[in-house]
Amino acid sequence: MKKIAFINGSYVEEKNAKISIFDRGLLFSDSVYEVTAVIDNKLIDFPSHVIRLNRSLKELKINYAFTEKYLLKIHKNLLKKNPFNKNEGLIYLQVSRGSADRNFLITKNPLSPNIFAFTQEKNLTNLNTNGLRIITKEDFRWQRRDIKTTQLIFASLSKTEAHDIGADDAWFIDEDNFVNEGTSNNAYIIDNNNTIVTRNLSNKLLPGITRQTVLEVAKKLKLTIEERAFTVTEAISANEAFISSASTLIAPVVEINNEIIGNGKIGPITAILRETYIKISKKNSI
Amino acid sequence: MKKIAFINGSYVEEKNAKISIFDRGLLFSDSVYEVTAVIDNKLIDFPSHVIRLNRSLKELKINYAFTEKYLLKIHKNLLKKNPFNKNEGLIYLQVSRGSADRNFLITKNPLSPNIFAFTQEKNLTNLNTNGLRIITKEDFRWQRRDIKTTQLIFASLSKTEAHDIGADDAWFIDEDNFVNEGTSNNAYIIDNNNTIVTRNLSNKLLPGITRQTVLEVAKKLKLTIEERAFTVTEAISANEAFISSASTLIAPVVEINNEIIGNGKIGPITAILRETYIKISKKNSI
Repeated sequence: MKKIAFINGSYVEEKNAKISIFDRGLLFSDSVYEVTAVIDNKLIDFPSHVIRLNRSLKELKINYAFTEKYLLKIHKNLLKKNPFNKNEGLIYLQVSRGSADRNFLITKNPLSPNIFAFTQEKNLTNLNTNGLRIITKEDFRWQRRDIKTTQLIFASLSKTEAHDIGADDAWFIDEDNFVNEGTSNNAYIIDNNNTIVTRNLSNKLLPGITRQTVLEVAKKLKLTIEERAFTVTEAISANEAFISSASTLIAPVVEINNEIIGNGKIGPITAILRETYIKISKKNSI
Repeated sequence: MKKIAFINGSYVEEKNAKISIFDRGLLFSDSVYEVTAVIDNKLIDFPSHVIRLNRSLKELKINYAFTEKYLLKIHKNLLKKNPFNKNEGLIYLQVSRGSADRNFLITKNPLSPNIFAFTQEKNLTNLNTNGLRIITKEDFRWQRRDIKTTQLIFASLSKTEAHDIGADDAWFIDEDNFVNEGTSNNAYIIDNNNTIVTRNLSNKLLPGITRQTVLEVAKKLKLTIEERAFTVTEAISANEAFISSASTLIAPVVEINNEIIGNGKIGPITAILRETYIKISKKNSI
């Protein structure tokens, strides 16, 4: 079956899904995106993704906000047109300021945003890792990582570099050796007091939608949470470590810079968090 | 007459020039570009643009290099198909790693790069400013500004912010108050000893092709050059200031953060540099 994408109001075969070369997303990375997880053919954390998308647009001074209803319809239509084999996968959505004659100067008259979306089959609820091996990299990205823009080349190169040397992913660290986040996920440790530690929100990292739900789940489980910066050294001596994102949900980290975390296996708290996260998210999915 | 763009081997009407939504340039800013000035229907500094394009590709680990001959043909064809009214303008060229299923991880098998180009009419030899007014902004861009990627949203927003408050452009400054460069141009001052000062090349700024020629022209004019960092304070007390880029050639700066530079008019050394730059560039154009 041919896969169908959405672009500017139309549903077309993916191979025919094309955008103007004058799209400002293409020319200036003047674009933002969201990735929504799908489990049992239903959308996880969808209202929060819509809220964050509109916030990203606002931060880029793109004077446009999408209703949840409008975006939900696109997502549901894509799910119908591209049924997932195991009812699990991702829906990617990108919005740019629009197409215009190339100019650094943004016109005062608002453009009509370009919007497109497509699906990606992916197993989400079956954990397909024995634990991730992480390297750390100095964070060379721009300073507004709280906006989910498509300025992703450093993250992409860093993840690839990690793979090239036999690891799975990279965590970005700041000039003081504190962990910001992963290449496309938030980073957590569970310290020797079983406290979950993840960096507090700022322009240094993305306010993860999965992160938000993970913290709610942790509260329900009566776990202690500290939202603060932690160092690589602290991470290495932690009991457990993990990441969260829409495309991995919660995934255990067992090695950082070749140092084993805990006993090198999936930690018990990470496991219960993941299980509970999936249970609660499925209940709240739409 | 309908304008014609080049895309992946074809010449098509601009309104039909479209690229796959799976282009990695669009999804990850995994793309680089060049802008070449055209004067008297001939290309300025073209071989240097080709060299820098190939360097940018290499720095992004895009294993592909274009020959000057191939790119020259595209540029010449575009010039024929889109004659400039006053024989002056710009040719924009963008190359991405290619199209692929969306994944931060870059596949080991190289993709086929996507390449497109289009023309923009612009007066270049008639200086259409009495001098630019500049604001300074903390530099929030990524740390590899020596690579000419399409990660340009901060530059675009900064230039727009400058316009919104009645200025023309922004200069980006580092944490020590040293000037890196402009939003899409290199920055220079001429100090009280008539020495031209511009920041030395590093990952903090783009190795401008026009910058390279400007320094050669300055040498021919027996002007003293210092390639080093300079502060905003130093700039404000300078005799003259200017910027260089393919799309402005050399343009005088007369105000920085509301402080007048020199006598607030185009400086004599800037004027002679501009005049000589245009003369030499026209002679070397192809």
